[in-house]
Amino acid sequence: MSELLYAGKAKEMWSTDDPEVLRVVYLDQATAFNGKEKEHFAGKGHAAHAISNLVFHYLKDHGITTHLLETISPTEDLVKKCEMVPLEFVTRNVVAGHFASRYGLDEGADLKPAVEETFYKSDPLDDPFINASSANALGIATFAEQEQMWAMCREINELLKALFEKAGMKLVDFKLEFGKLPDGTIILADEFSPDNCRLWDLKTNAHMDKDVFRRQLADLTETYDRVLARIQTALEEK
Amino acid sequence: MSELLYAGKAKEMWSTDDPEVLRVVYLDQATAFNGKEKEHFAGKGHAAHAISNLVFHYLKDHGITTHLLETISPTEDLVKKCEMVPLEFVTRNVVAGHFASRYGLDEGADLKPAVEETFYKSDPLDDPFINASSANALGIATFAEQEQMWAMCREINELLKALFEKAGMKLVDFKLEFGKLPDGTIILADEFSPDNCRLWDLKTNAHMDKDVFRRQLADLTETYDRVLARIQTALEEK
Ligand SMILES: Nc1ncnc2c1ncn2[C@@H]1O[C@H](COP(=O)(O)OP(=O)(O)O)[C@@H](O)[C@H]1O
Ligand SMILES: Nc1ncnc2c1ncn2[C@@H]1O[C@H](COP(=O)(O)OP(=O)(O)O)[C@@H](O)[C@H]1O
Ligand SMILES: [Mg+2]
Ligand SMILES: [Mg+2]
Repeated sequence: MSELLYAGKAKEMWSTDDPEVLRVVYLDQATAFNGKEKEHFAGKGHAAHAISNLVFHYLKDHGITTHLLETISPTEDLVKKCEMVPLEFVTRNVVAGHFASRYGLDEGADLKPAVEETFYKSDPLDDPFINASSANALGIATFAEQEQMWAMCREINELLKALFEKAGMKLVDFKLEFGKLPDGTIILADEFSPDNCRLWDLKTNAHMDKDVFRRQLADLTETYDRVLARIQTALEEK
Repeated sequence: MSELLYAGKAKEMWSTDDPEVLRVVYLDQATAFNGKEKEHFAGKGHAAHAISNLVFHYLKDHGITTHLLETISPTEDLVKKCEMVPLEFVTRNVVAGHFASRYGLDEGADLKPAVEETFYKSDPLDDPFINASSANALGIATFAEQEQMWAMCREINELLKALFEKAGMKLVDFKLEFGKLPDGTIILADEFSPDNCRLWDLKTNAHMDKDVFRRQLADLTETYDRVLARIQTALEEK
């Protein structure tokens, strides 16, 4: 009695017998430009899933509460069902992507302290940029809730910058999503994969994330597999 | 020996014999859609200038420091020359305009507390939306400076909501600009006119601002003259 609740751009969310638990399936597809381009990539779901799992376990080991319960197949997890906060929390350590074009900057300069941007998750509105005062006034998340999520983002940023540096990559920027449990607790939900971050090779600055698809630079699955192998090695070294 | 330093979308800035003083000329023109449409309106400069002067004097009488020094003709002021902070500070008391379309809302709902948005003043970039963390990281204005300017905006919002209500209009939203004096003091600069705010008739909700031009609803100068007359009456009543 598993029902498809939501078919997203990269994952499917299925119900389970437990109303508080969802099954997530990572798909072999990627979209770019807010879903306007979509392609099939054999093995991509497996690689994105494996990376996300390693990262979420690493974060859990360092005190971050996440929705992850159990990995049940190479592309599937059981997660705590949340009421999602419809915001994307983007942290930028380095100028890249839309941030560069929006403000007329070249990619590559360090941003210190890191830039923090929120986007309102809405496909019909094209995920518009939103700030704290609007998210508060529109009832999307209070100032206090947003501050709590940003505090988690800052902790996660420090943890992940260290992990990726050990794995030979620069964490340029990344997007996180948070959800609320029935008791109001805010936890890290969704995923962390090269679909939602930028990773540049520490030595060559080569792109090791979804930009290889957006900019047609290299094979997506091969790139994600390389990221996975590097994270595995970095975690074993510890 | 007066030199044209800057020809803007609504005003000209001229040098004077005093290097710390500029002469501002309000022009008989209006632009819409970030300068993509521009039209001549006889008498518009006069009306916008008169409104801005009444508002700046009212604000000064209530403790706000502004750049205004002296009115020297029906369309000209002398002002303190500032190093402008290249940000537009937009305060929104009611859903309207771009805010409505960006977030898929109908115009007209109250926003409480008021929404506060900054835009990076850059014609080539089309004045993009920017948030506090980006303005800070890009060296446009520190967090502390932005907080100081927002504190002034909040005070000004309270003062102007009261003034416009007395004048039979709802202050829907408005844009302010600030500048720094050589000693670092931040003061209110630029202007306050229906070019840079939305005013709705309290009874009919009729537009009494530049939207009559953007949406081709009524004559621009006649509308501004009506706003001017109402503010004059409201100030006399006090
Ligand atoms: N723990 C959770 N509980 C409920 N919904 C979740 C949880 N984690 C992620 N989601 C939501 O499930 C969807 C995941 O699928 P995805 O393909 O990423 O969708 P989208 O195209 O909307 O980004 C997202 O909308 C995300 O917000
Ligand atoms: N006191 C001041 N000192 C220096 N520049 C100012 C001052 N007040 C306003 N300005 C600037 O002068 C210009 C006014 O002309 P305007 O037509 O409004 O220009 P714009 O099209 O750039 O908005 C603006 O760029 C504004 O930032
Ligand atoms: Mg997603
Ligand atoms: Mg202007």
